[in-house]
Order: sequence, then structure tokens, then C-alpha cells
Amino acid sequence: MPKKTYKLSEISDFLGGQLEGDPSKSITDINTLSEAHESSISFIYNKKFLKDLKSTSAAAVLLSEDYKEHCHKDFILVSNPHEAYAKLTQLFAGNIRENISTQNHIDSLLKSDVQIGNNVFIGKNVIVEDGVIINHGCYIGDDVFIGSKSYLHPNVCLYHSTKLGSGNIIHANSVIGSDGLGFAKIQNSWEKIEHLGFVEIKDDVEIGASCTIDRASLGSTILNNGVKLDNQVHIAHNCIIGKNTIIGAKTAIAGSTEIGEDCLIGGGCGIVDNIKITNEVRINPMTYVTKSINKSGIYSGGAVVLEHSKWLKHITIQKKHFDD
Amino acid sequence: MPKKTYKLSEISDFLGGQLEGDPSKSITDINTLSEAHESSISFIYNKKFLKDLKSTSAAAVLLSEDYKEHCHKDFILVSNPHEAYAKLTQLFAGNIRENISTQNHIDSLLKSDVQIGNNVFIGKNVIVEDGVIINHGCYIGDDVFIGSKSYLHPNVCLYHSTKLGSGNIIHANSVIGSDGLGFAKIQNSWEKIEHLGFVEIKDDVEIGASCTIDRASLGSTILNNGVKLDNQVHIAHNCIIGKNTIIGAKTAIAGSTEIGEDCLIGGGCGIVDNIKITNEVRINPMTYVTKSINKSGIYSGGAVVLEHSKWLKHITIQKKHFDD
Amino acid sequence: MPKKTYKLSEISDFLGGQLEGDPSKSITDINTLSEAHESSISFIYNKKFLKDLKSTSAAAVLLSEDYKEHCHKDFILVSNPHEAYAKLTQLFAGNIRENISTQNHIDSLLKSDVQIGNNVFIGKNVIVEDGVIINHGCYIGDDVFIGSKSYLHPNVCLYHSTKLGSGNIIHANSVIGSDGLGFAKIQNSWEKIEHLGFVEIKDDVEIGASCTIDRASLGSTILNNGVKLDNQVHIAHNCIIGKNTIIGAKTAIAGSTEIGEDCLIGGGCGIVDNIKITNEVRINPMTYVTKSINKSGIYSGGAVVLEHSKWLKHITIQKKHFDD
Repeated sequence: MPKKTYKLSEISDFLGGQLEGDPSKSITDINTLSEAHESSISFIYNKKFLKDLKSTSAAAVLLSEDYKEHCHKDFILVSNPHEAYAKLTQLFAGNIRENISTQNHIDSLLKSDVQIGNNVFIGKNVIVEDGVIINHGCYIGDDVFIGSKSYLHPNVCLYHSTKLGSGNIIHANSVIGSDGLGFAKIQNSWEKIEHLGFVEIKDDVEIGASCTIDRASLGSTILNNGVKLDNQVHIAHNCIIGKNTIIGAKTAIAGSTEIGEDCLIGGGCGIVDNIKITNEVRINPMTYVTKSINKSGIYSGGAVVLEHSKWLKHITIQKKHFDD
Repeated sequence: MPKKTYKLSEISDFLGGQLEGDPSKSITDINTLSEAHESSISFIYNKKFLKDLKSTSAAAVLLSEDYKEHCHKDFILVSNPHEAYAKLTQLFAGNIRENISTQNHIDSLLKSDVQIGNNVFIGKNVIVEDGVIINHGCYIGDDVFIGSKSYLHPNVCLYHSTKLGSGNIIHANSVIGSDGLGFAKIQNSWEKIEHLGFVEIKDDVEIGASCTIDRASLGSTILNNGVKLDNQVHIAHNCIIGKNTIIGAKTAIAGSTEIGEDCLIGGGCGIVDNIKITNEVRINPMTYVTKSINKSGIYSGGAVVLEHSKWLKHITIQKKHFDD
Repeated sequence: MPKKTYKLSEISDFLGGQLEGDPSKSITDINTLSEAHESSISFIYNKKFLKDLKSTSAAAVLLSEDYKEHCHKDFILVSNPHEAYAKLTQLFAGNIRENISTQNHIDSLLKSDVQIGNNVFIGKNVIVEDGVIINHGCYIGDDVFIGSKSYLHPNVCLYHSTKLGSGNIIHANSVIGSDGLGFAKIQNSWEKIEHLGFVEIKDDVEIGASCTIDRASLGSTILNNGVKLDNQVHIAHNCIIGKNTIIGAKTAIAGSTEIGEDCLIGGGCGIVDNIKITNEVRINPMTYVTKSINKSGIYSGGAVVLEHSKWLKHITIQKKHFDD
């Protein structure tokens, strides 16, 4: 888990910004305005967070001229706060990609009530509880926690600091804790937003083969108790999946979306980012969900099959529009 | 391959059910009503199988009050037969997740006409025919059979008891034989239905990279001769794919669906469970297939691209409905 | 990298064709009519390439009676040029699947400025520049090049001859260089078209977890500088992705399609083969793109979610057509 402390002045210098406030303050992490605490640095580049700016507990805020007058905290003035945020994540990420654990700490797990397959890698500070089974070829990054009786099928990859509860089953070749898609546009390139957050999988979760669950940018991506994922499901950074929700194969859920409890989400769905789906929602397969769903019930959206000749007639309007 | 024998009385006691019939009968497996033989136990929780109940050869049937009068065989009366079935699969699955093969039987394959890459794991009772090549990092579970001249690219994972024919090519990171998505809803959680079935891949099949093919709940998931899958295809439990059918990238086929011979299925399709598609059907990409297709021909369904401003007009009705 | 030379007469004999021309010509590769040079053999089985036939520099062309009179070069007459092309790719592919590198050349990389994880396989003639990190379980095929400071997460698989530039990040379980989907239909089976081409990833590219990028049939699949792929993206053979383009999770791009620079392609899209999308195009998620897009702008296509009862009304026309 990358964790460092910087003086506010160091951060301001690193970003080439203009500091208004106490340069000697110690900053221990980056956080959203609403989650920030008194040693966090936060950021704003979108008006919808203005009310969070007013109530934030952050030690300081990255911002541009537009937001300066609304800020009652120390701040660092920068021309492009999104870019500055991206660069700051890199500072806090430190050397996570400069050195890898090549020393296998597998010996630390060789107690009688844990079974480890062949060619498994165990990073440092890994905690594994009783009855855990880790099959052939798995990679367990530094600082991972695996709760009792969880079972990892072959070639599963848990990135550093992933937290797995008890009684979970993870099928082969799934990846948990990879970086979410996050980049800030700068002039002629993309600046990587390092993902400083985590993935937390609670208890009795089953994850199918070849799923991908991204770590949060800040905070955690969370799968609650009893969640069941079919194969090739993609859960983006900062999603929260409610208790006992089942998600069909190949469904993708974009960043920061929250799914309620006891939902049944069919296969092949695409659910956009930053929305919220309430409890006991059933979504049929191949549905594109573009907004929040606030009412329990059954939803559909897929474009159903037709004989090709009839489909061609059916899409006349689309074709006409496209060719205009 | 898990295989055990239980007395009917043991099963009834395990499930807390009420046995009507001969407690000393030996039960060797669980099976569907139509596939059951004289030492099978079967189950019913859906009226559409009533006619199978009449003709079944099963030694006994799990059922609730509703079906009792229709059953001419021994039966175990339970309040929730779906839950009872799930629990019974766990009994028959036995300790499949309690112990893993950590002993690598790779030495048993070191004959001159088989090539094995680095960091490969070979379970017990694995049979590999002449000319097979298994690349770096593959996992071959117990009781797997691999026919002559089949070629496994790196990091392929074959779960236990998978049967692979001759002349197959399986690209990197594909997973064959993982559990299908199957759970019985009980009060506040999901009861896992253990998948006791198999995957059988016949001859001259090519499977792309990062595909997932689930084992059957009971019986087998089958890919017939000459089937070709592109990358990231998902085939659910108990599907049967006909001879020489080609399936494009990212298509998902849900449980127990049967695809005919010589079909061409485009990429990104979603095909629902328990339907049947006849021979020589071509389905264009991104189509959602919700019912059986009984006539050869070309089918489409995708919602084609529009300029966003025109799309917004096009979906006015949907938007209106959604906001109602 | 498979590379062989054959006399034109050997090729003609291998294919059972009828050679018109100089049997002693040395043929070094197969190529498209437009890319062929003076020691290439090319092929034609589609009228749209007639103009390329006229201007080709190929030493000889595989063709059927239909194209004979249009050919000013040496040719080999065959009954089915697509099948002949497929067989010829197999001749040139040679023994790529007959022998694997089981000898791990990892020692050749043990210099101080390269870090290699556990259970990594390095093929022969691999070149790795300074600062590269290759994590646990990766497979690096023969003749791969990895540019400076590129970072491979665990279980990444690079097939032979893949070329990776500098500063790339590839997340866990991604596969680069697998064969594209390519088969020629012959009477009762599919003849494999061996993929003799490459994948070339330029600099500062990030590839998410469990992506698949296929090698070209001939030539190269190319991801240009600054391309960013989310998880589970599929890029088919011979695609070219323009500079700084971002592609969302689970999008699939079919063969030989070219995407421009600075595009933003949402998740869950399907883009058909052989089209071209210009620069600065934004495509919203779940869109099915069936034709080239020549104008920058925003495009959509997904079929948005409705309450199921309303969706059933909405698709009345489709249902009626389907049941006709």
C-alpha cells in the first residue's frame, strides 16, 4: 500500500502551482472533497462539486481561478486542476511500478491449514486465513488479505492491497485490483491517473472465470456479501455492488456506479458510470442502462433479432439519418 | 471426477426430507428426469417437466407436495426442491474444493512425443496422446484427457475431467470447465449448485484467446468437430455447439442453448438460455437472440450507429417511457 | 519469426496448381496484391481487388480461371484460390506449432536494469531494453522486442515476434499476438489461415486486464502512441488504432478496421471489419458501428433501457416480423 507524507509546499512545488496557505502542513493522502480529512489534499474541476467544496475538511484544495473565491481552505492554484490531480496521484503512487517483488514469500504461508498450488507467487505482508486454497499460477500482490476458506482457481491475479473476505470462490484467470481507466487530457497526450484505492470483496462472493475488477481511483471498489458474478464480467473502479446481486456473463459496469441489493442483471449489459440502481431490480440481457433506476422492477432494452431482410427495413430511418 | 454412492436414506437424512420408498437403494448420481437411469436420483420444480416425471427411469425423485401425486417412483418430499437439489449437488461434489492437487504429475508425460512448456501443472490421472503440446503456465486438472496433436497456448486452464479431442488449438488464457452460474435462492442467500458435469471438446476445434467454456451442471457442455471460436467468447453450462459453427469475438451463449451445424454467429451477440438455433443460420454481430430460430437464413438485430443528435431524437419514445 | 524461401514450382506442386511462368523464381513471402514486392506471391479471389492485380509488384499470383486474363504476372491457376491461400499460409508458417521453446532464456535478461518476476518464460532472441519489468507468470515468445520502461503485469502473454515500444503498461492476463479468426471454407471443414503477421504496439500505450490483440494475417496490427485500452477489449487482426485514442471496456473491433487519432470509443461497442473511422470521433457505449465514419463528432446507437412492460410494447413490430 503506497503511503507517504508530503509538506504542502513540496506538493505545490511539484505541481508548479501557487500556494495560498500554510506551506508546512503535512499531507498524507489525496481524497475527494467529501471524503477528505484534515491531512488530505483534495481537488475541484467540476461545478457540481461546489457544495462539497464548502463543506470539505481537506487541508488544502487544488483548483483553478474559477473556484478560488468559493474556497475557505488553503489552496494550490493551478491552470489545469485535472492534470494537476493526475500528476499528484503519480507522486503519491511513488515507485509502485519501479520495483517489483521478485522475492516469493510463499514460505510464510506453509502452515497446515492453507494449501498452495504450484508456481504461485506471494508478495510481502500477505495475510491468509485458515482453510484458504490458492491454486496453480496465482499471483498474490503485496499487502493482500484473504479470508478463511476462500478458494482461488488457477492463474487468478490479485493486485497489491486487495482485500478478500471469507468463503469466496474466484474462478480461473480473473484479475482483481487492476487500474481503472483514468487519464487527464493534456495538450498532446494523456496523463495517467494512478489508482491509489483498493478492491474489497466481502464474504461468500463467487467470481466467474476471466472477470476483471478494477481498483478504485481513491477509496474502494466494493462487492458486498453474497454477490455472484458469471464469467467475463467487468466491474470498473469505485463501483459498489449490493448484497446478493447476481450479474450475468459479459456485463460491464462503468466507474462509480452503485448497484443495489438482490438485483439480477442479465448478461451482455452495459451500465454507464456514476449512476445508481436501486434494490431488487432485474435487468434483462443486452440492455444499455444510461440512467439511474430508482424503482424496483424488471427492465429491458436489447434490440431483438429479426430476419436480416426485415431488419434492413426496420432500420430505414437510422440508415437515412446516417447517410444524410 | 467426483463419484460416490449414497443410500437413499442417507440422502433423505442429509436433506431433512421425508422418504417414501426403499431406504436401502444405492444412488450413484443426480440426473435430469429424462437422463436419469435406475441408480440416479432426479428432481422436479417446474411443471414443464411433468411428462418427464411420468417416464423417468430414476430410482427416486426430489419433489414438493405439488408433484407427489404425479410420481410413480420413490420420492423424497422436501419443502423447496430447488434448494434441495442445490444441496444434493454439494453432497455429490464432495470435497472438490477441500483439497487440491499440489503434486505435479508432469513426469508422467515426459515421453518423447509430448512437449511440455515451463511452469505447467499436470493433475493426477491425466491422459495426453501423441504429439500434444502444452505451453508455459497451463493448468491441467485431474482426470483430463487431451487427444493427439492438440496444442495449448500459454496459461490455458483445463478444469478437472475436461475432455479434449484431437487436433485442437486453444489460445492463451482460455478457461475450460469452470462452474456455470447456478444458485438456488434461499431465504437470505444463494445456495451454490455444484456443477457435476463436464466439458467435451471434439476434434479440430479452435478456441481463441481468453474464452470461457463452463462445465455442465449435469451431463456435458459440447463443442462438436470443427467449431471455431474467436477471442473472449463465453459458452455457458450445458450448451451444445454444432459441427463447423464459427462464433465471433465476445459473443455469449447462455445455459443449455443448442446451436446447429455450419452456423456463422457474429461478434458481440447475446443468445439467451434454453433455446435452439437450427443449422446454417447466420447471425450478424451485436444481435440479441431471445428465441429459437427454426429456419436457416440470415438474422440481424443490432441497433446501428447514428450521429448522437439524431439518436437522441430516435429514442424519444424510449426516453418518454422511461421518465413516465 | 517464420521465414522461408520456396521456388515457385515447389509452391505450385504443393498446391496442386498449374503454373504459368518461371518455375525457378524464389518466393520469400505471401502478401496482398498492394503490399507485394518482387519476391512475394499474392492471391486474388474478390473482384474488388482487380485494380490491385493490375498494379501489383508480386512475383506471381494465385488465381482461378476468372482472373487469368487480367493478370500480367506469372500465376498459379487453382480451383479455389481462398483455400489455396490458406494452405500456402500453412506452408510458410512451417513448424510453428510442431515445436515449442521449452528452454527458458531468462538468464539472458538478468542484467541489473531489468526486473523479472517468478515463473516467467523468455523465448529465444528476445530483446528487452532498460528499465523493463516483467511480472510473475508472463510468457514472452521468441523474437519479441520490449522497449525501455515497459511494464508487464502478471500472466501477460506475448506471442512470438510481438513488438512493444517504450513506456507501455500491460495489465494482467492480457494476450497479444494470438491468431486472428481466419478460415477458408472447403467442402466439409474449415482450412486454417495461418497468421504470418505481427502486432506492433508503439510507445506510451496502456492495455487493460484481459485484453486480446490479434496478430495480423499478413502485415501488422498496430496500436499507435498513446492509445489506452480499458479491460477486456478485443482488437482483431490487421486493425490500426490511431494515436491517443481511448477504447472502453469490452469493445470489440473486427478485422482490418482503422480507427483515427484522438477518438473516444465507449465500452461495449462492436465495430465491424474493414471500415475506417476518422479522427476525433466519439462513440458512445454499446454502439454497433456498421460503416465508416468520415466526419468527426459524437455518435450513439445503443438501445436504451425501458421498463420491461414498455419494452415489450416497443418491440411489437420486431416480434410481429419475427413470428411471420
